This record gives sequence, C-alpha cells and structure tokens, in this order.
Amino acid sequence: MADKVTLLDFWPSVYCMRVRIALAEKGIKYESKEQDLFNKSPLLLESNPVHKKIPVLVHNGKPICESVIILEYIDAVWHDKAPLLPSDPYQRAQARFWADFIDKKVGDATKKIWATKGEEQEVGKKEFFDALKLLEAELGDKPYFGGESFGLVDIAFVVFYSWFYTYETLGNFSIEAECPKLIAWAKRCLEKESVAKSLVDGKKVFEYVVQLRKRLGID
Amino acid sequence: MADKVTLLDFWPSVYCMRVRIALAEKGIKYESKEQDLFNKSPLLLESNPVHKKIPVLVHNGKPICESVIILEYIDAVWHDKAPLLPSDPYQRAQARFWADFIDKKVGDATKKIWATKGEEQEVGKKEFFDALKLLEAELGDKPYFGGESFGLVDIAFVVFYSWFYTYETLGNFSIEAECPKLIAWAKRCLEKESVAKSLVDGKKVFEYVVQLRKRLGID
Repeated sequence: MADKVTLLDFWPSVYCMRVRIALAEKGIKYESKEQDLFNKSPLLLESNPVHKKIPVLVHNGKPICESVIILEYIDAVWHDKAPLLPSDPYQRAQARFWADFIDKKVGDATKKIWATKGEEQEVGKKEFFDALKLLEAELGDKPYFGGESFGLVDIAFVVFYSWFYTYETLGNFSIEAECPKLIAWAKRCLEKESVAKSLVDGKKVFEYVVQLRKRLGID
Repeated sequence: MADKVTLLDFWPSVYCMRVRIALAEKGIKYESKEQDLFNKSPLLLESNPVHKKIPVLVHNGKPICESVIILEYIDAVWHDKAPLLPSDPYQRAQARFWADFIDKKVGDATKKIWATKGEEQEVGKKEFFDALKLLEAELGDKPYFGGESFGLVDIAFVVFYSWFYTYETLGNFSIEAECPKLIAWAKRCLEKESVAKSLVDGKKVFEYVVQLRKRLGID
C-alpha cells in the first residue's frame, strides 16, 4: 500500500513549518490541507479533538498531533533517510531537552511580542532574549545544534526565523545585533532546500500579523 | 563499568516520583539525593543550569533533565526489561501525546488548586476536571492507558494520585464521585510495587502543602 500522508496545515504557523521541513528532509510526498483557524474544519476537530490545533499529520488515516511528536514519528517511520534524531540515548535526550526548551520558552515569549503591547510585550522581549542567549550558548561554534548534521533542534528553532522580522518590527530591536551567531546559523539552515521551501517570507508574516492584531483588537 | 545512577530528588514532587517508578520498574539501583528547593545545591545548579529544577538523573556523570525525557532515556538505556513505551511508532506517538497532555493540562491546573485561592483556584478546579474527563475517556475500559501493560502514560499520571487528598481537601470536591474509573485505575497501578514504594502518603503531602502555603503567604 502506498503511504497516504496529509498535513492539516496553516501557512504562517511555525509548528506547521517544522512538519513541512521534516517531510521535505525525508522526501515524503504529501497533501497540504490549509486550515481556517477562525472556522475549524470537521476534519481538524475530528483529528485533534483534544487540542483542536494545527498541525496534524494524518498518515494512512491515523492522526498524529503536536509538532515535536510528529517529527519523532516521521523520524521513526521513515528511518532510512536523513535522521532527525541521533541514535545515542544521551544525545537523543539532549535533543529532546532543547526542542522542549524552545516550545516552553521561545513559543510563549514570542507570542507576548506579537500578540500584546506595552508592559506585557516588554516582558516577552526580555524572555525572548534570555532564551536566545541560552540557545546561542548551546549552539557554540557547532554548525548545527546536534553537531555536524542538521536535526530536530534545528528544525524546532529555525522556523521562528520566519517571524524574526515581525518580532523586530513590533518590538523595535535587532536580533542580529544581540545574537549574530544565531543569525549565521539560521542562514546556514536556509541553505538547505527543505528549510528554504518550508519557511515563509518574513514580510508576508508581518502583513498577516498586522491584520491579525487588528482583528484581535490589539492595536 | 558498573552504572552509577543518582537522582536529584525531592520527596513530594510528582515529577521525581515518575523517575522513581521508572527506576523501580527497571530494577535499577540508584542513590537519591534529596534537594532543598529554597537553597539549591551547587550540584543541582550545575546539573540543570537552564531550568534549575528537579528531577535530574545523573547517569555516569551525565545529567538528564525533564521527567518525561528522563523516562524515555531510562527506557532506551535499560531496554531489556519492563518496556515503558510501545515499539510501534504510532502507539509511541499516542503515549507521548498523552504524557504531554498531562504535563500541559494537569500540571498547570493542579498548581492553581494548591498554590492559589479564590477565583484562580476555581479556574484550576474547572481545568483539572476538564482534563480528568478527557483522561477517563481515553482510558475507557482498558486496564492501563497503553492497553494491557503499564507504561509511560500511567507513570506520568499516577503520581498525581499522591496529591489527590490535597486537591480534594483544598478544593472541597471528590475526584472519585466524578471520575470513579480513574480511581479504580490508580488503585490498579498501586498494586505494583514500583508504584506503591515510589508514591508518597497523601496526608504527608497535605501537611507539606499546608506549611508551604503559609511560607508562600497564600493562607
């Protein structure tokens, strides 16, 4: 049986971009079904009844939810090409630790930057730079987070690069001025076709966020 | 070389209990080093410089942080006994999904019950029962979350049973009245020696929380 792979997708979502990169790394053909988050489809509600969130990967009729769990699933099922996780248990634990750190710290902080203003936005900026500094230290002089090869942590984090222009414009700061090594790393990742074709242009994200802030009554 | 395993532990922590259960399931000998969370040890700060939290498992000098990541590590390294995760990638993804759900929903909601009062505590109670109802539905008529055998999701969740007396007393509700199947499941888990010896008596947890609330100025 040929694999049927569908991604319940949303173009500016960093979490969907992660899945798109992983599928591209593995060379998996799939159908992207763009979702309307203000009017959720029966397919999304049935596929992720607990969180009702994108992305959902539907593989031969079975839904898998939560982006990092989807990446682990993709790596386990299509294990003969482009490993996303190292095989050593300690290295795997380290990769999971940093992917989890990104979810907990970068996700929350950046939401405060784009979805709030004033004092709460300032808190978000501080939390964001605290997280960036830790990530830059963890990267060190390695080409990728896991060392010589592109993997889980790179995928989990590089997707936020699509939103850097938005954070910088709304927050009035420069990420490159503070964390030049992270920008060099992001550009290195973008040399990979899997990343370049999965990420979205920063100005398009910004236009989307400007509209979204109006719709949510933030500005 | 004999394995040297140390757990940076804290007796009432549900996250530490998870690691204690997994180590007991695997029959791993280890040293528990009780931590003072109001005066963190150099060992804790060096072992988990990012989050500065317990539990940390130190295996032959290498620290692993975050309880579910530790459980996955233990399962991978000591893979010849008492598997905690299923081998099938889809079933693994499901187990990870529910462990993640417990971390995101039960952890936050229960903290509101024991660490706040008034309106915020009421919000915690509602979120807690919403999560319990979803977990009860997921359990269904299975003996354990993964089916016939005790595993990751059971470990991730059963530890909260130690705190049920505290939640019920502070929140003035009965979990058994609302979710009898979950209580039956917890008692089934407690028949396992690994669980019985890793969990803490509910009344001791309550005494600890009463003191902690005073110290934090909540009551």
